[in-house]
Amino acid sequence: MSFTLREYRAPDFTAQPFVSAPDCRLEAAPQDGVAPFDFHALSIFPEYFKIDGRWLLCEESRMDTVPVLEDGKVHAVEARQLKKGQAVVCGRTENAEEGIYLHSDGFDESAGESDSFAFRIGRSRETSYSKDIDDIVSLLRYERDHGKIVWVMGPAFAFDKRARESFSAIVEHGYCHALLSGNALATHDLEGAFFHTALGQTIYTQENVRNGHYNHLDLLNRVRAAGSMEAFIEQESLSEGIICAAVRNHVPVVLCGSIRDDGPLPEVFGNCYEAQNAMRAQLKEATTVITMATMLHSIAVGNITPSFRVMPDGRVRQIYFYICDISEFAINKLTDRGSLTSKGIVTNAQDFICNVARELGVV
Amino acid sequence: MSFTLREYRAPDFTAQPFVSAPDCRLEAAPQDGVAPFDFHALSIFPEYFKIDGRWLLCEESRMDTVPVLEDGKVHAVEARQLKKGQAVVCGRTENAEEGIYLHSDGFDESAGESDSFAFRIGRSRETSYSKDIDDIVSLLRYERDHGKIVWVMGPAFAFDKRARESFSAIVEHGYCHALLSGNALATHDLEGAFFHTALGQTIYTQENVRNGHYNHLDLLNRVRAAGSMEAFIEQESLSEGIICAAVRNHVPVVLCGSIRDDGPLPEVFGNCYEAQNAMRAQLKEATTVITMATMLHSIAVGNITPSFRVMPDGRVRQIYFYICDISEFAINKLTDRGSLTSKGIVTNAQDFICNVARELGVV
Amino acid sequence: MSFTLREYRAPDFTAQPFVSAPDCRLEAAPQDGVAPFDFHALSIFPEYFKIDGRWLLCEESRMDTVPVLEDGKVHAVEARQLKKGQAVVCGRTENAEEGIYLHSDGFDESAGESDSFAFRIGRSRETSYSKDIDDIVSLLRYERDHGKIVWVMGPAFAFDKRARESFSAIVEHGYCHALLSGNALATHDLEGAFFHTALGQTIYTQENVRNGHYNHLDLLNRVRAAGSMEAFIEQESLSEGIICAAVRNHVPVVLCGSIRDDGPLPEVFGNCYEAQNAMRAQLKEATTVITMATMLHSIAVGNITPSFRVMPDGRVRQIYFYICDISEFAINKLTDRGSLTSKGIVTNAQDFICNVARELGVV
Amino acid sequence: MSFTLREYRAPDFTAQPFVSAPDCRLEAAPQDGVAPFDFHALSIFPEYFKIDGRWLLCEESRMDTVPVLEDGKVHAVEARQLKKGQAVVCGRTENAEEGIYLHSDGFDESAGESDSFAFRIGRSRETSYSKDIDDIVSLLRYERDHGKIVWVMGPAFAFDKRARESFSAIVEHGYCHALLSGNALATHDLEGAFFHTALGQTIYTQENVRNGHYNHLDLLNRVRAAGSMEAFIEQESLSEGIICAAVRNHVPVVLCGSIRDDGPLPEVFGNCYEAQNAMRAQLKEATTVITMATMLHSIAVGNITPSFRVMPDGRVRQIYFYICDISEFAINKLTDRGSLTSKGIVTNAQDFICNVARELGVV
Repeated sequence: MSFTLREYRAPDFTAQPFVSAPDCRLEAAPQDGVAPFDFHALSIFPEYFKIDGRWLLCEESRMDTVPVLEDGKVHAVEARQLKKGQAVVCGRTENAEEGIYLHSDGFDESAGESDSFAFRIGRSRETSYSKDIDDIVSLLRYERDHGKIVWVMGPAFAFDKRARESFSAIVEHGYCHALLSGNALATHDLEGAFFHTALGQTIYTQENVRNGHYNHLDLLNRVRAAGSMEAFIEQESLSEGIICAAVRNHVPVVLCGSIRDDGPLPEVFGNCYEAQNAMRAQLKEATTVITMATMLHSIAVGNITPSFRVMPDGRVRQIYFYICDISEFAINKLTDRGSLTSKGIVTNAQDFICNVARELGVV
Repeated sequence: MSFTLREYRAPDFTAQPFVSAPDCRLEAAPQDGVAPFDFHALSIFPEYFKIDGRWLLCEESRMDTVPVLEDGKVHAVEARQLKKGQAVVCGRTENAEEGIYLHSDGFDESAGESDSFAFRIGRSRETSYSKDIDDIVSLLRYERDHGKIVWVMGPAFAFDKRARESFSAIVEHGYCHALLSGNALATHDLEGAFFHTALGQTIYTQENVRNGHYNHLDLLNRVRAAGSMEAFIEQESLSEGIICAAVRNHVPVVLCGSIRDDGPLPEVFGNCYEAQNAMRAQLKEATTVITMATMLHSIAVGNITPSFRVMPDGRVRQIYFYICDISEFAINKLTDRGSLTSKGIVTNAQDFICNVARELGVV
Repeated sequence: MSFTLREYRAPDFTAQPFVSAPDCRLEAAPQDGVAPFDFHALSIFPEYFKIDGRWLLCEESRMDTVPVLEDGKVHAVEARQLKKGQAVVCGRTENAEEGIYLHSDGFDESAGESDSFAFRIGRSRETSYSKDIDDIVSLLRYERDHGKIVWVMGPAFAFDKRARESFSAIVEHGYCHALLSGNALATHDLEGAFFHTALGQTIYTQENVRNGHYNHLDLLNRVRAAGSMEAFIEQESLSEGIICAAVRNHVPVVLCGSIRDDGPLPEVFGNCYEAQNAMRAQLKEATTVITMATMLHSIAVGNITPSFRVMPDGRVRQIYFYICDISEFAINKLTDRGSLTSKGIVTNAQDFICNVARELGVV
Repeated sequence: MSFTLREYRAPDFTAQPFVSAPDCRLEAAPQDGVAPFDFHALSIFPEYFKIDGRWLLCEESRMDTVPVLEDGKVHAVEARQLKKGQAVVCGRTENAEEGIYLHSDGFDESAGESDSFAFRIGRSRETSYSKDIDDIVSLLRYERDHGKIVWVMGPAFAFDKRARESFSAIVEHGYCHALLSGNALATHDLEGAFFHTALGQTIYTQENVRNGHYNHLDLLNRVRAAGSMEAFIEQESLSEGIICAAVRNHVPVVLCGSIRDDGPLPEVFGNCYEAQNAMRAQLKEATTVITMATMLHSIAVGNITPSFRVMPDGRVRQIYFYICDISEFAINKLTDRGSLTSKGIVTNAQDFICNVARELGVV
């Protein structure tokens, strides 16, 4: 099955209510990091703002950020990054009456790949996922050449032999354009590459090795001594696992710190708001996002990722968002955000990635 | 990897404490369905009883049943099936002092496939399962020709296209010698075969069909009209799905009723204790049991299945028991029973069966 | 806060489309246990059938059963109980065009206790439940004197000291008019009353007692010897726990068998369809149902319980249905059935019952 | 029931193997943030190091940190905080042979409150928790005057009326000496205090208020404008909820940032390793830790908290650690760390805190 994008239909701004709508109201941010009290907050949907009589799309949107007019464009700025005096759009309507329009149904659901993605229902362990896997596979084939695929994963992912091999093959075959994760995933994965263990157990057999509980601490210490993951990988001639595959294929890896961390590895962002910035830098160009086995990162990425992207040629397209988690609770936390294009898959991420790799034909 | 059974080492009854141990004490059941108050209860392990100076193994054991001497053999009888006057072994020690000996470490863990099965650790969604899948595959290859493989499944299993195809292929290739399940699984599966829907949604696309909520009721009504699943399958020339594969390959199917049932299908045991008897009749010869996506049936089967089987040639071998469930709670409920050979796999059963089928090479 | 019932507004059968609607179509059941192929299936909502020009309500309805005309009334009959030749309503519309009308919005949501019960949202561990507890308490106060309160519980309920005391107090104070459960709950509870243990652990301290794993088997054996729970309670002068409270207060107890059972106790229904009949006999008069810590029984009871009841004086009122479970999956399985009046509470049932008892002022 | 501490029995260093053991080996850290490759890593247990012939206890220990000798004392230093040249204890044995001794059984389990805390078993939703609640209550009564009680909580805690009231009462009555949480908890709680909503729903009734989805963003913006939570609380005369209670009672609050955050509030540590330092500063004096409804913070705190504390008078005592979570998975993640004194309680934290407050008699 080949994959077709849905058409985007922009609002007809030559018609009412757009023509007689006023310009949106702009007010100066009163302090650094503080918005005017009636600021407008952006959503995951395309939003247009009437400025000097013209309707401008906020192109790189992000839910719960503030629209700021600068250089003739509307930017989505996190409140913490506001500078005193920046021009913030104010108003809390979305129907054009204050010059603000939220366009929630811009993608034609009756065309293109509508059968695959048009409906959304509750997902549970009892849902059938065969078609979702097929959909993801045809989506990934399309996106490899036409989009940007961002994968997000939790730490346990590095523990299983087949999952490591499957994801590495996905990277090698060009189906991964950025990887977002945390200190633990990279630490476990490099422990696997260097010691062939996961938290001190041989990865495949799960047999304990002697003093194996030191392995992840030693790994952290050695990478810190080497100065970077890349230097360590080169120095030790490592080739196996997720991080090695990413480094070898020049896939950017963003590692976010958390209060659970040992170490951390040198590349890890200790400041979580800088980590958010680095995640957003990758997600700004994303067209497909797949999160696996991490509620923390899935929700963080869900907060940052809008439902659409403006491509370099100006075309507006959907962003596809999948979350794989073994817990319905995690799935529901994310899909409750209400994006038409977010879908949950309730299973163990090990199996999910092996299925995807196999159906893609890369393992 | 080829599979080797562990050796069984029977106790040395020519040594102490066995030689000087007394005969075990026998008392008559005081009423139908009632045991003497200090009856002995059997476990999942091999247990020997000294009768007339000789130590007899209770060959077809079952946890929490009562050892009854009859025709020179010790039988494991459910309390509800006791007849007044039957000779029940009494005593609550297990170390030979009352002529009762429980042999919990009879299988040589240092030999055979010990690396695969010898250790037992807590299982969770974060455990690595690659080796378990490989172990199951080599086990199934061995058991197809040398043992009896019993599968147990919950109702949601029939909802997914790949899972249906995978399990059907497992049946077709001889890796299933009995199937234990409930009314809902068979109803959903036959709805799939006849209407191509699951609870009114097209199986693959999950699109709702018109009045689809009638489909499972209609299916039940039509099978009841036909008189049996087999008659219905023949009459409607059905060939797809789990039940059809079982019927075509002469695999016995035991369907147990529950208070949640509609219908039921004609073959379903309405009486749950007769259902237990039918399950036990299949499990008496089982050498490998795999339960999937059903806490109720998994625990029921776990209650009935001992840790060993006496083969027709008199050899004692282990029974292998796997439970696949997406919930750690369900896994722990079963593995807490303490069998060395019971292993949990925490994932969606859809993916589990697809993995097993693929690694077996049957899909 | 006092509790007020919502008004029921019957359809106006003197208006269209009711006046010109045809009589519903009746066909004879072709065999025992088999309905005509286009039988109508009932829902949880009030449904009216036009018979000889008059619209009759099926008063004691049950989802997925078949409407049968007998003695001038429409009865809801399980397919398995149909007798050959009975007059079954056929047709699969619900808008009067075939003389069948489903009345899904008969209860005035703008009046009475609408604030408490009118809206329905997804429930999870993160939902706030303070108001639900208060609502349940005012509901129970009303129902004690004006309705019938049916409690349904899973086996683990008998393990906790405070939960046992709380539920016993609820029974003693008249807030329980029937109890539906299984063999395990009653066995564990009577083990507690007789041995002061739960599966061999002292209930409060959870210390293991010697040979305690025999306790539940001994309990079963002794009750079977006594012939009934009531005889055993009297013979042993037991007074503590759930079953004793029910017996002392003449609360009917329906115990349904399952394939997991040991024993069973003499009162347990071994046949699950007879168990369904016994449950339905209790539920026919129920006005409030609360299920706790049992997915199996919760769904079974949900299948049997309609959304309304016709009171002896002919008034139609709502049935209130609460399910308490620690798993969102279990909650969602039940609330997906779509009743406005079913609400899930995600917590450990121990705490739920203690909260209810305390707010009721009975402990 | 009154609470008694267990006695600590230090090793007898006048006996073997301690007398003939060598001094431990010290090596200089080769770089900032890097340990010698055979560094010793600390555990949750008391560990002694032989320095100049004397055995020194590392008093403020932390699992997986590095023992550093400075000013005649052994300090537990996170690898990231090591300074080049610091003297690090090296060696990976724990039995004195390298001058390192881990004392895992120092607390006399046969004395004091042994019945309450001496055994440790698997915990699930089916475990009885009545005694745990009683134990916690007597522990808290003791600790209020003799120890330091640190509470840790996840964000959903602020959503429920009774839970807010119960925890506030616990704070008011002196049972909370530090509070560790994240940006979301404080934001939700202050939204409750200021807007009387939680994510835009009225806290008690859960009714949506108009434009309520702006409330948490507005709250963040207003607190950022005020400059601090304390300034905002004073400026708006807020008095209700968790943060207000903490501020009013001078309870230190550590808020750790995460990549999921909006805002953040001014007090939040954006750098997660600085957050760890701030958490550890509070935990260094902790004697009882209770975590609720947060896997992230529970594990982070578990990583930081040892099993013992050296009191100002030099006495060594146990630290008590409870985790309350609705998910067995979260509980098991923490209790697998192997501390005798860590106990899991599987329920909704709302109910847990209400129970504790009620049994303490503060509500």
